[in-house]
Amino acid sequence: MKVLERAKELEASGRSVIHFEVGEPDLPVPEVIKRRAAEVVKTVELKYTESTGIRPLKEKIAEYYEKAYSINISPDQVIVTPGSSPGLLSVLKVVSEKVGKVSYADPGYPCYKNMLRFLNLESVSIPVNPESGFKISLRDLKTEVLILNSPSNPTGAIYSKRELEKLSEKVFLVSDEIYHGLVYSGKAPSVLEVTDRAVVVNGFSKFFLMTGWRLGWVVVPEWMVEDMTAVLQNIAISPPTLSQYAALVCFEEECLSELRRNVEIFKRRRDLMLQGLKEIGFRIPVEPEGAFYIFADVSEFTNDSYSFAFEVLEKTGVAITPGRDFGYNETDRFVRFSFCTDEKDIEEGLERLYRFLREGI
Amino acid sequence: MKVLERAKELEASGRSVIHFEVGEPDLPVPEVIKRRAAEVVKTVELKYTESTGIRPLKEKIAEYYEKAYSINISPDQVIVTPGSSPGLLSVLKVVSEKVGKVSYADPGYPCYKNMLRFLNLESVSIPVNPESGFKISLRDLKTEVLILNSPSNPTGAIYSKRELEKLSEKVFLVSDEIYHGLVYSGKAPSVLEVTDRAVVVNGFSKFFLMTGWRLGWVVVPEWMVEDMTAVLQNIAISPPTLSQYAALVCFEEECLSELRRNVEIFKRRRDLMLQGLKEIGFRIPVEPEGAFYIFADVSEFTNDSYSFAFEVLEKTGVAITPGRDFGYNETDRFVRFSFCTDEKDIEEGLERLYRFLREGI
Repeated sequence: MKVLERAKELEASGRSVIHFEVGEPDLPVPEVIKRRAAEVVKTVELKYTESTGIRPLKEKIAEYYEKAYSINISPDQVIVTPGSSPGLLSVLKVVSEKVGKVSYADPGYPCYKNMLRFLNLESVSIPVNPESGFKISLRDLKTEVLILNSPSNPTGAIYSKRELEKLSEKVFLVSDEIYHGLVYSGKAPSVLEVTDRAVVVNGFSKFFLMTGWRLGWVVVPEWMVEDMTAVLQNIAISPPTLSQYAALVCFEEECLSELRRNVEIFKRRRDLMLQGLKEIGFRIPVEPEGAFYIFADVSEFTNDSYSFAFEVLEKTGVAITPGRDFGYNETDRFVRFSFCTDEKDIEEGLERLYRFLREGI
Repeated sequence: MKVLERAKELEASGRSVIHFEVGEPDLPVPEVIKRRAAEVVKTVELKYTESTGIRPLKEKIAEYYEKAYSINISPDQVIVTPGSSPGLLSVLKVVSEKVGKVSYADPGYPCYKNMLRFLNLESVSIPVNPESGFKISLRDLKTEVLILNSPSNPTGAIYSKRELEKLSEKVFLVSDEIYHGLVYSGKAPSVLEVTDRAVVVNGFSKFFLMTGWRLGWVVVPEWMVEDMTAVLQNIAISPPTLSQYAALVCFEEECLSELRRNVEIFKRRRDLMLQGLKEIGFRIPVEPEGAFYIFADVSEFTNDSYSFAFEVLEKTGVAITPGRDFGYNETDRFVRFSFCTDEKDIEEGLERLYRFLREGI
């Protein structure tokens, strides 16, 4: 976050900054979604909806699980939220009361810990390492509930069906599947393919590109629906109405095929960035299979990746995220590169890094 | 909530239901806001914004405090939120950590207690009675922080400047001013007119009618800005982008004057409903000066307002909210009527109530 702030300051002062720090896809939302939204604004009075979302959207999402994963879920299990963050927050509240204590991977998405702290709940971090592909395995389990993130931020690692299955037998999984759809090798299975005793958190801000529209969903077991509804009524009232109606078109073939073409774009960027970073001397112990991040070992250059990120920013105008933003487990030797910028910028950024780190310019 | 559910069931089965239970204004959003939104959808790529909102909206809101209340605040103190609920939730987290324990009025808006429970925080309710206009006074104070709601849900009571002043000298006030603008007698002062050691919670869902757009704001002292920003980054990312850009026109004179004309409509409804309810035999110890609710004493008819609300719904098709939804302090003898329906429906509802309660039909 401090890197982002400093990057903005530099940019405001006229410096050219290459943004390898952002976690927001840069590609535009498909036209068909925008057109629908423009119609809805004119024709629908945007009042509150049901607190867990409009029925037609729940139905579309349930159908999507059938088509994309061959999973049969009821629309009643689908809870539409004002972004995946409030969805996850509500889930963490309910499962911590009804199931037990929650743990999460370190390094991992920092909001998990912050949300649990917000809820005034004790939580436990589980160190994960390159040796296990930054993934949690059976022997690491410490609590009744485990948050998984697959594909993962910051590593892009994907849990296999077998891995999900083994974990789900021992622990209640809250599976953050927000990067589903953005997969470059193999397939990312949903936790619901192996168990129905789990929660899926997902949303429209990554694969569907609808970041500023603030819309997400969770799929919960039937017994959680009433509690989730009560929580969301109290903390959020309802998700944005326009976004819900516009999102109905997301699941039409015209839209899905455009979004799938985007995945090719991200894949090319990943390949370009992986190759460039390795040439510069970054070690990448786990290459990303999904999401849009590369978690790179910077031991070659520093033993303090936090200062390194700031130094690189000041010297080259390339913004990267220090590992510390993702936890405490050996994060001093990692930084995260994001490929939410176009190939031209990626090339420019890599060149600047090469000149600075290899040629001292 | 159960009344609302049952009302929907009855309606689905073909019964005509008069909705005196809803807390959502029925009037349409001004055309100028819709037009702006339709433009924005086409011209602005709706990406995440700053987590506390776009600068131009913060500036408009700050200017509004100058114009409407002659209060001078900095745009930096304005934090735009995805509805006033997440704004209040974040405020409660920060003030409970930095200032102390929180209390609230009973009867009062039920989400205060529920939000504090969500945050896993102890809280204290303060019984308020008709004798004090359902308002909290100095001798009632029990904690370091007090949530006020003025105009109040469910009573429509307004705290005077003098009352706010006295309270603010003894306690940190979180002033829920969401019903500001909807005032029928006198004026509702903002807590910021008497102190800057307080928080204001407000939003676009009542006076501005933008319910399904999910946009609110809070005004906080400078020392809270950093904590609020961190909390909102973690639990909400950012407010809906389209709503923020559309809301910029809310403060233009064309829009404000339409909204002020709406207040006349609500005032006529209030007068009509007050008169009708009294004729039927409801006692109204505190007549609403603002908001769109009447909190009526039903001792004439029952000593169990919860069952009464369901009986009235079944027999007459008029949906009202039982007092219990607002707390435990003598709420068995109160119900809340909302006037978010047009005059024709209000007349029809009153007539049904008269026939049932006075003529036994």
